[in-house]
Amino acid sequence: MNDVAFAPAYAEPAGSPIRELFPYLSRPGLVSFAGGYPSPALLDAEGLAQASARVFAGDPAGVVQYGATEGRPGLRAALADMSAGRGVRCEAADVLVTAGSQQAFDLLVRVFVAPGDTVLIETPAYPAAIQSLRLAGAHLTPLPVDMDGLQTDALETLLRAMPAGRRPKLLYTVPTFSNPSGSLLSQPRRERLVQLALEFGFLIVEDDPYGELNFSGAPVATIFAAGQRLAGARNPVLYLSSLSKTVAPSLRVGWMVAPADVLRRCAIAKQTMDLCTSPITQAIALAYLEAQRYESAVRRACDEYQRRMHAMVSALSQALGARIEAPPPGGGMFVWARFDHRVDPQTLFNAAVELGVLFVPGAAFQPQAQDPHTMRLSYAAPSLEAIATGVARLVRAFDIASHGCT
Amino acid sequence: MNDVAFAPAYAEPAGSPIRELFPYLSRPGLVSFAGGYPSPALLDAEGLAQASARVFAGDPAGVVQYGATEGRPGLRAALADMSAGRGVRCEAADVLVTAGSQQAFDLLVRVFVAPGDTVLIETPAYPAAIQSLRLAGAHLTPLPVDMDGLQTDALETLLRAMPAGRRPKLLYTVPTFSNPSGSLLSQPRRERLVQLALEFGFLIVEDDPYGELNFSGAPVATIFAAGQRLAGARNPVLYLSSLSKTVAPSLRVGWMVAPADVLRRCAIAKQTMDLCTSPITQAIALAYLEAQRYESAVRRACDEYQRRMHAMVSALSQALGARIEAPPPGGGMFVWARFDHRVDPQTLFNAAVELGVLFVPGAAFQPQAQDPHTMRLSYAAPSLEAIATGVARLVRAFDIASHGCT
Repeated sequence: MNDVAFAPAYAEPAGSPIRELFPYLSRPGLVSFAGGYPSPALLDAEGLAQASARVFAGDPAGVVQYGATEGRPGLRAALADMSAGRGVRCEAADVLVTAGSQQAFDLLVRVFVAPGDTVLIETPAYPAAIQSLRLAGAHLTPLPVDMDGLQTDALETLLRAMPAGRRPKLLYTVPTFSNPSGSLLSQPRRERLVQLALEFGFLIVEDDPYGELNFSGAPVATIFAAGQRLAGARNPVLYLSSLSKTVAPSLRVGWMVAPADVLRRCAIAKQTMDLCTSPITQAIALAYLEAQRYESAVRRACDEYQRRMHAMVSALSQALGARIEAPPPGGGMFVWARFDHRVDPQTLFNAAVELGVLFVPGAAFQPQAQDPHTMRLSYAAPSLEAIATGVARLVRAFDIASHGCT
Repeated sequence: MNDVAFAPAYAEPAGSPIRELFPYLSRPGLVSFAGGYPSPALLDAEGLAQASARVFAGDPAGVVQYGATEGRPGLRAALADMSAGRGVRCEAADVLVTAGSQQAFDLLVRVFVAPGDTVLIETPAYPAAIQSLRLAGAHLTPLPVDMDGLQTDALETLLRAMPAGRRPKLLYTVPTFSNPSGSLLSQPRRERLVQLALEFGFLIVEDDPYGELNFSGAPVATIFAAGQRLAGARNPVLYLSSLSKTVAPSLRVGWMVAPADVLRRCAIAKQTMDLCTSPITQAIALAYLEAQRYESAVRRACDEYQRRMHAMVSALSQALGARIEAPPPGGGMFVWARFDHRVDPQTLFNAAVELGVLFVPGAAFQPQAQDPHTMRLSYAAPSLEAIATGVARLVRAFDIASHGCT
C-alpha cells in the first residue's frame, strides 16, 4: 500500500502551518514526512473487522442507544488495566473514555482554563494543544525541552520568578517520545516535575499517546506513577492516552485517568460536547482488546517504526553531516531536527515542496516565534524506500537553501 | 425488551435536574417518561449490523485511519441529499459531519459566542443547549413559545427594545416538534423569524433532530428553506440535524449545513475537540443509508411513537381533566404539560418517584425560574402497557399533590 497517498493527513489541526501543506499531498510521487498519523498498513484492520463482527453478532441491540458519558463499563475496566500496566494504578471508575486524547485535553482546558490564565507548555509542542489553549484565551508560557524532555531547572527558575497572581493552573507535556521533539523525560525530571507541581499548586497533564511505541522495550515509569508515589491521593498528575497510535485512529477512543472531582467536571463538559463517545466504537475497541491481538500488533508496528526511524536518521546524518542535528528518538513517530543557521528555512521549505518531499516547519510547534531552523520529520507512514527517496530530495533542497555551508 | 431498564438515559446533560433522576432509573418496575432518547426496540439494529459487516468486508484498511475533519465525502453527499429532501438545498461541500447535532451546536457556540454575548433561546429549551451557552458565559434571553412555536411578535418587541450594544448574535430553536415543548413553528412565523434575523443581524440555529418523526406526514418546510427563499446567499439560518433519533444514537453522527466561512471556522474548532468524527461510524452510517432501509424504519418508529403519544395524552386528559393541559404534538418524542397551580410541583414529583413513575420537572428547561407548574413527558421509550401503568401512577401522585382541585 502507498502510505502517502492513502493517509489524509487531517490529523493535524488547522490554523497551524501544517494544514497548509495539504494541497501538496495529492501530488503523485510525493514523499511526506509531514504526517502526524500511524502507518495504516501497520494497523490491524483484520483484527478490527473481527472485533466489529463479534460486537454486532453478539448483541446488536446493545450498541444502538446512547451510552453513559463516562464510557462503557467494560471498556473503562480494560483501559484501567492497560493504564495499570504503565504504572498508572486506577480503577474503572477513575477512567473517562474520550474521543481520542485530543478531546480529553480539550475537556481539561474547558474545565480549568479561563481567559488570561497562565498555562505552561513544553516547547516545541503538539500544535492542537497550543490551538485548544489559544481558543480558550490562555496565556501560554513555553518551557524549553532537550532530549531528556522538559528542562525542570528552567521551569523552577521560571516558577520562582513568577508573581503569585500569574501562577499557572496547568502544565502540558508529552513526556514519552514527544510530538514533535521525540524526547523522553528522564526519571529524575519526572519526580522534580511532581515536586514543583505540589509546591506551586498546578496540575500536570501527562499526554501519553506514544508510550507503547517504545523501541527498546525498557519500561518507562509515567509521571502519574511518580505523582502517586510522592503525593498519594494529592497526586497532581492527570493521565491521558489513546488507542489512536496503537489500535486505530478511526476508533476515536482515548481516555483520561483523574480524581473523581475532575472526572465529574469533565463528564459534565463532555455532555455539552457530544453526550458520549460512540458506543459502537467503544464496543469494537473492547472486543479488540479482549482478542489478545493488541500486543503483537503493537510490537510489529513498533519494530517497523524503529527500522524506519534508523533509516531516516542515518541517511540524514550521512548526507547532511554537520548541517543537521537529528537525534534518534527512543520511540514514537517523530524526528525533531535542527539545521545550520546558514540554511534559509523558507527557501528550504519551498525547494523541498518543489522537489517532492514534505516536512513540517518547526514554527508550527512554537507558541511564540523562537527557532525557525527546526523541522519535524515523521518516519511512521512512509516505507523504507520512500524514506530513502525523500531524504535524497531533502538533501537537494538543503543544497539549494544553504549559504556558505555544505 | 424492557425499554426502561435498557436505556441509560444519559442523553440528558448533567447540571440539569434531569440527571438527578438517574439513581431512580434502576428501580425494578419503574416507568420512566423522563428519557430523552428513542426506543432502542424501534431502532434498526439488524440493518446497522448488516451495514457494519459491509464496511469491514469491503475495505477494512479504508476505515482505520483518521479522516477529514469535515467528514467522509460519501456521507457528506448522502446527508446533503437528505437535507435537500427537507428543503435545505445544499451540496456535500456545505455539510460538516459532527458527533451528533449536540456537537454541531457546541461548535457554533465556541466559534460565535464570547462571554457576555447575548443569545436568544426559545423557552422551554433543550437543557444541553442552555448548558453549552452557560459554559461559554453567554447572556441568555429566553423567548416564549406556544404550540405554534417561538412567538415572533414577542421576539420583535424584544429586539426593538434592545440597546444596540446588546444585540444578539445567535437565536437557538428546535422549530419542528421541539424538545421539550413538542411545538411546531408555523410557516408565517418561520418567514418572520428570517426577516427579523436579517433586520437585526443575528444568525438562526435551526436544530432539527425530530423533523422526520412527523406523525401526519404533511411536509414541513424548514426555516433554512425560508432563509434561502428570502435572502439567497445571505441566508441567516444554520441547519443542524442528526441520525440519532432516526437511525441510532450510538453512531454519534449529526451534521451542520452552513456557509463556507462558518463551516471552515467550525472545522478548525472541531480539530481541537476530536480531530474528526469516527470514520468507522461514518462509514456504517453511509452503508446504512445506501441500503434503503431508512425510510421504512423511520416510518415504523414514527407510527409507533404516534400510538404511544395518543395513548399518553388521552389517558392524561381522561384521568386528570382540567388539572392538566397536555396538547398532543404533531411529531417528535415529547409532551409538554402544564398543570393546575394548586398542584404543588415538588410534592407531585416526590409522590411520582415514590409511586414508580418519572417525568422531568419543567424547571430543567428554563434558563431562568419561570413556570414550575410544568413537566416534560416522553412517550418514545415506554411501551403502551407501561404508558397505561405510568399514567395511572401519575394520577395518584396528582391526587396526593393537589390542594383544592380534583
